[in-house]
Amino acid sequence: MEVGCPSLLYHYLLTIVPKLYLSSMKFEVTILGCGSATPTLRHWPTSQLVNHHGHYFLLDCGEGTQLQLRRYSVKFQRINHIFITHLHGDHCLGLSGLISTMHLLGRVNDLHIYSNISLREAVELQLKVSHSRLRFNLVWHPLSYDEPEVILETKLLKISSFPLNHKVQCCGFRITEKTKERNIIPSQIQKYNIPYVRIRQIKAGADYILEDDTVIPNADLTLDPPAAKSYAFCTDTAFSEKTIEYVSGVDVLYHESTFLERDRQRAYETFHSTATDAARIAKAAEVRKLVLGHYSARYHGLSAFEQEATSIFTPVVLGNEGLRIKI
Amino acid sequence: MEVGCPSLLYHYLLTIVPKLYLSSMKFEVTILGCGSATPTLRHWPTSQLVNHHGHYFLLDCGEGTQLQLRRYSVKFQRINHIFITHLHGDHCLGLSGLISTMHLLGRVNDLHIYSNISLREAVELQLKVSHSRLRFNLVWHPLSYDEPEVILETKLLKISSFPLNHKVQCCGFRITEKTKERNIIPSQIQKYNIPYVRIRQIKAGADYILEDDTVIPNADLTLDPPAAKSYAFCTDTAFSEKTIEYVSGVDVLYHESTFLERDRQRAYETFHSTATDAARIAKAAEVRKLVLGHYSARYHGLSAFEQEATSIFTPVVLGNEGLRIKI
Repeated sequence: MEVGCPSLLYHYLLTIVPKLYLSSMKFEVTILGCGSATPTLRHWPTSQLVNHHGHYFLLDCGEGTQLQLRRYSVKFQRINHIFITHLHGDHCLGLSGLISTMHLLGRVNDLHIYSNISLREAVELQLKVSHSRLRFNLVWHPLSYDEPEVILETKLLKISSFPLNHKVQCCGFRITEKTKERNIIPSQIQKYNIPYVRIRQIKAGADYILEDDTVIPNADLTLDPPAAKSYAFCTDTAFSEKTIEYVSGVDVLYHESTFLERDRQRAYETFHSTATDAARIAKAAEVRKLVLGHYSARYHGLSAFEQEATSIFTPVVLGNEGLRIKI
Repeated sequence: MEVGCPSLLYHYLLTIVPKLYLSSMKFEVTILGCGSATPTLRHWPTSQLVNHHGHYFLLDCGEGTQLQLRRYSVKFQRINHIFITHLHGDHCLGLSGLISTMHLLGRVNDLHIYSNISLREAVELQLKVSHSRLRFNLVWHPLSYDEPEVILETKLLKISSFPLNHKVQCCGFRITEKTKERNIIPSQIQKYNIPYVRIRQIKAGADYILEDDTVIPNADLTLDPPAAKSYAFCTDTAFSEKTIEYVSGVDVLYHESTFLERDRQRAYETFHSTATDAARIAKAAEVRKLVLGHYSARYHGLSAFEQEATSIFTPVVLGNEGLRIKI
């Protein structure tokens, strides 16, 4: 016969712990910068912080990213993984400064960087000439720009890269949560006096068998888990049919819209998208929400971007510095 | 007999042109950033723009300098000379971004960079990995960190570097105007009907001889020129006796004051100065004005810096972003 937990501890494990866990759950993107190559006072170069249940991931790191992290009170040292789409300056020139500051602030933990591997030499040389001898490891993960690939897998999520269509090698990133455990129904667990050691199996979908061989089906003990969420980050890129498959069904798609349709020719020449392009991708990929960004310095207002995109797809959110997007 | 100018044109050349010239004369420093290594929301990394009669010189180029140039409406392409004191990131990490933007905005003129030559390789590699093939030349001028040296001389001024005492090779810069021409007295020139072709000699100090051999002494034709001004920029450095000689008698001295005297030990360990150190240099060098800056992130207000320095030397100005200092 299996031994149950003492009732007070049991109650705590069954009811309080899941509540604490749920309250700490967060899948949120903060836009640190959504301007394009030439600087303006309206936008910062590209960077986003993804907070997934307290794990921080940085997507791109344009010049001034460390200042924006300060502005939005992000603890630098909680960032352990940085993903760089491509090596144009407005997407990576903040990296050496951020690394230097992490060093000055006493970092010791490894920092993982997923990037075109050419960046490694440039960053390491910059650190060398400034006599920064890091007390932590930079762990470089070279990206393939040919095919989608899983580049990081943790207990909670998978992050993959996929090729985009830009002037230089460039990729997008997709962050996909793993299917979560089923939610137990505490009153049912107590009713059948199910010991704590069986809970993990039940959360994974197992039935429970009583001593008299009665089978209590899992459906009587659990509820469906919260849906696994996903986020995709596509910048910089011209419209590309292939992207539709890579970002298919995500909850939130950030897709660059450097230009408006009236500047289609310029978008074509520079391998960028218009708001229409972004909306076409969002629609075809059946995403739940589209966020626009990477606006060219030539536009002084954003309403035309929203107008153009919403004629094809809704809902559209205009990316802006400081915007926090719940996934 | 020499031929005079027609009277209207002559009047224009003698009176209007000098007035226009005087109104365009400017020797002004704009502080773009005066924070120290770790970023805060109160200050930007080090950079200053010197405007000398419409010629722009950039002193240091910390991360985000191009954004600050935008903020203060400085036309990027008018900067032809950039001077880098040393290679710590907060003094040079904005250089690659600024160069990239100059390129994107169509620059064709040479850009001169005066720096530790190690920076060349780091910047060129960064530009290479981002596929930036510049349409203009970067002309690198390696600095010597052993002795003071004149590194740029134009018709109007001389810029020299001089060694400072920091953890890594570091130098300060001194910008010294050349002695200006004497100011002619238009009424006297007209009285003696002196032809325009003689004006240059008279401005240089020559007497004028009338047809009857009467000598009109230069003192009757001209007034003393405006004083030649000078500015010195000292960051980053521990207190160094030698600096006194290098910045002797300048009109304005910017001297770093990373720390207050109560953190003397920290200043000592990091090869930085306190406000007291800066004021001691200013006093001994008999400068006319001291500007403080490069404040450590640990201080949330600046009044203690002013208080500490003014107990030794006045006047003291607290450096701050956007501050314009007339030299």
